[in-house]
Amino acid sequence: MQKDIKIEDLTTPCVLVLDPVVRNNCIKMNERAHSLGVDVRAHMKTHKTVEIGKYQFEKNQNKDQVIKIIVSTLSEARFFSKDFSNILYATPISPNKVDEAYQIHLDIERLNIMFDNIEHVNSMVEFSKTNPKYSKRWSVFLKIDCGYHRAGASPELQSTTDLVHLITKGEFKDYFDFQGIYSHSGHSYKCNTPEEIKELAKEEARVTGDYGKKLKSLGYHVENVSIGSTPVCSHLPDDLTSYGVTEIHPGNYTFYDLMQMELGNCSIDDVGVHVLATIVSVYPERNEILIDAGSLALSSDPGCTHLKNRNSPNFGIVYDDTNLRIVAASQEVSKVQSSNGSPIDFSKYKIGSKIRIIPNHSCLTAAMFSNYHVINKDNNIFKTFKPNKYW
Amino acid sequence: MQKDIKIEDLTTPCVLVLDPVVRNNCIKMNERAHSLGVDVRAHMKTHKTVEIGKYQFEKNQNKDQVIKIIVSTLSEARFFSKDFSNILYATPISPNKVDEAYQIHLDIERLNIMFDNIEHVNSMVEFSKTNPKYSKRWSVFLKIDCGYHRAGASPELQSTTDLVHLITKGEFKDYFDFQGIYSHSGHSYKCNTPEEIKELAKEEARVTGDYGKKLKSLGYHVENVSIGSTPVCSHLPDDLTSYGVTEIHPGNYTFYDLMQMELGNCSIDDVGVHVLATIVSVYPERNEILIDAGSLALSSDPGCTHLKNRNSPNFGIVYDDTNLRIVAASQEVSKVQSSNGSPIDFSKYKIGSKIRIIPNHSCLTAAMFSNYHVINKDNNIFKTFKPNKYW
Repeated sequence: MQKDIKIEDLTTPCVLVLDPVVRNNCIKMNERAHSLGVDVRAHMKTHKTVEIGKYQFEKNQNKDQVIKIIVSTLSEARFFSKDFSNILYATPISPNKVDEAYQIHLDIERLNIMFDNIEHVNSMVEFSKTNPKYSKRWSVFLKIDCGYHRAGASPELQSTTDLVHLITKGEFKDYFDFQGIYSHSGHSYKCNTPEEIKELAKEEARVTGDYGKKLKSLGYHVENVSIGSTPVCSHLPDDLTSYGVTEIHPGNYTFYDLMQMELGNCSIDDVGVHVLATIVSVYPERNEILIDAGSLALSSDPGCTHLKNRNSPNFGIVYDDTNLRIVAASQEVSKVQSSNGSPIDFSKYKIGSKIRIIPNHSCLTAAMFSNYHVINKDNNIFKTFKPNKYW
Repeated sequence: MQKDIKIEDLTTPCVLVLDPVVRNNCIKMNERAHSLGVDVRAHMKTHKTVEIGKYQFEKNQNKDQVIKIIVSTLSEARFFSKDFSNILYATPISPNKVDEAYQIHLDIERLNIMFDNIEHVNSMVEFSKTNPKYSKRWSVFLKIDCGYHRAGASPELQSTTDLVHLITKGEFKDYFDFQGIYSHSGHSYKCNTPEEIKELAKEEARVTGDYGKKLKSLGYHVENVSIGSTPVCSHLPDDLTSYGVTEIHPGNYTFYDLMQMELGNCSIDDVGVHVLATIVSVYPERNEILIDAGSLALSSDPGCTHLKNRNSPNFGIVYDDTNLRIVAASQEVSKVQSSNGSPIDFSKYKIGSKIRIIPNHSCLTAAMFSNYHVINKDNNIFKTFKPNKYW
């Protein structure tokens, strides 16, 4: 039935997912990883759909790779557990989520839990002790701070290595199956050039890889050394495995967005998600357009405001005419201006016309919608994807 | 059943609505308006719930006031049409929404449509001409630009008055029931002090009121002269009716938020919505806390970044200790720091502890959730409100 709906008939604002673009992004990331000898642990947080999750493993050239994913919430873990059996929950576990996490862990091969503090370890052990009927070991990753300073234990602290000892050879060794170490280079979004990102990629690989090597030298088994962020995964060093890295965990690359374009990680034609909006009024006297996609459709992420050559403020650009930019976003409407000040062609941009917007941050934008209209290369809607929502 | 759930048992992140606070905010705004001799056209966009919509008319001291509301989307108009019969749709109508709007208009006393361009008028007339079975007149407001320069026709242009003529005495007079004029002072959020907001309130009242007087002097009937924005409605001039204003249309005041606090429009105890989050890790070595409420729970609205004495960046503050501020928000986690640099008391803020956050912008934050946990003065959850979602 969906086949009969045309883009021009859609209620706006809404999201278009460009199917061939997304699939190509997935293939390219897999090829890049495999040519470097590492696996992709595909992140689901950007799209939150089973369909695109499967695209992330299409034409997987490394036939031996385990299909392994990463999610940003326990709700996602539950959602994806029907189709994936090796899942990593990306946030350090809090005691109030231990029970729910364990139930998911029981249902699949392994729900890997992240820890970076003794309290995480204690809460898992306490659950196991008070529920002796559950004998399955917790499957865990140690989160390492590679310099982003958001989450993760410092690899320089002895207490970090003590944690690994505790769960592998120490008092709690019977409760855990230590899977390896993980870092996230979120600070890559603050880089100014692809060269800076490339340096950061080496730095993350070095910090996390070196800590993996240290643990191995101390006699601990470290199966996975996982690094990532889409910017870093777009600029990996050729000798990645020499650092000891075994897998990367990008997510945004499925959709990309304006931030990734501005950082030099993709081109406009690689962006797999557009917000479709309608022009609801025009103001030739101010050379401005008003559209029906505001902060609740685009998100209010201001994007890479640190980039010097960027037109700001800016909540997205118009796909068909990148000189047109969203300069202000209210809850349900946004204001579009010509970034170089040239007169807008109001014979083309009329009230009722639809425009496509490349959003600043596709992870947040996609999360604003209850479904995605999926289009093929001929711009025909041929599927609807329903993302996981909430917590 | 909901009565048995305690705050400490809630899955985080989630939203708490402070029932007595919200009801008091509604009563105070009504009292303020009525003491000045104007009506409140209550905006639904912040909370999007029927329950709070009704709170906005509780203890309405002006017994003669029509119960009239304003909404930000047609989806909201449909949602609220079961309980409210006089609704204003706040965005200029686009041709693709004319049909849906008219169907709602048929179902209630009046769905008022906003216009600021001849194309809006034309599209409504065209609908009526091609659907002659529908004889009900369109009920419309003219949107006036009072200086915010987002939407609205300029009161200084002859073409604006020509539009009023066209639909009241001109060619299209049989299709329309002209309800009056409307302005929105969104630029009040860029003010620096309550005094500046007070000046802006006078300015909006003057610009919009004067245009209403001009239309009347030209012989047009202007029943409603509507101004607003929560900041302006918090600092109205005592002689508001002398400007010709008949109604105000605030929305955010039901919940308020950190931006309203920082602008001087409310106190922390007036904020009616808190985001409940769990501490998922602590980093004493960096004097930082990690919580499980990120951009998808708080929104990524950076708030009043223009205020000079503000700690920035800042995506919210901790209710119980306003020295603790969210300095960085990722998709699902945020980083909390002590804003004056004093050591965080980690014996109080432990992994697993819950904290309440005052968000920057409650309209966007509330929209991130599928339901609100409503608490009474004793912090017991006694109701759940389900807001309207999407478009």
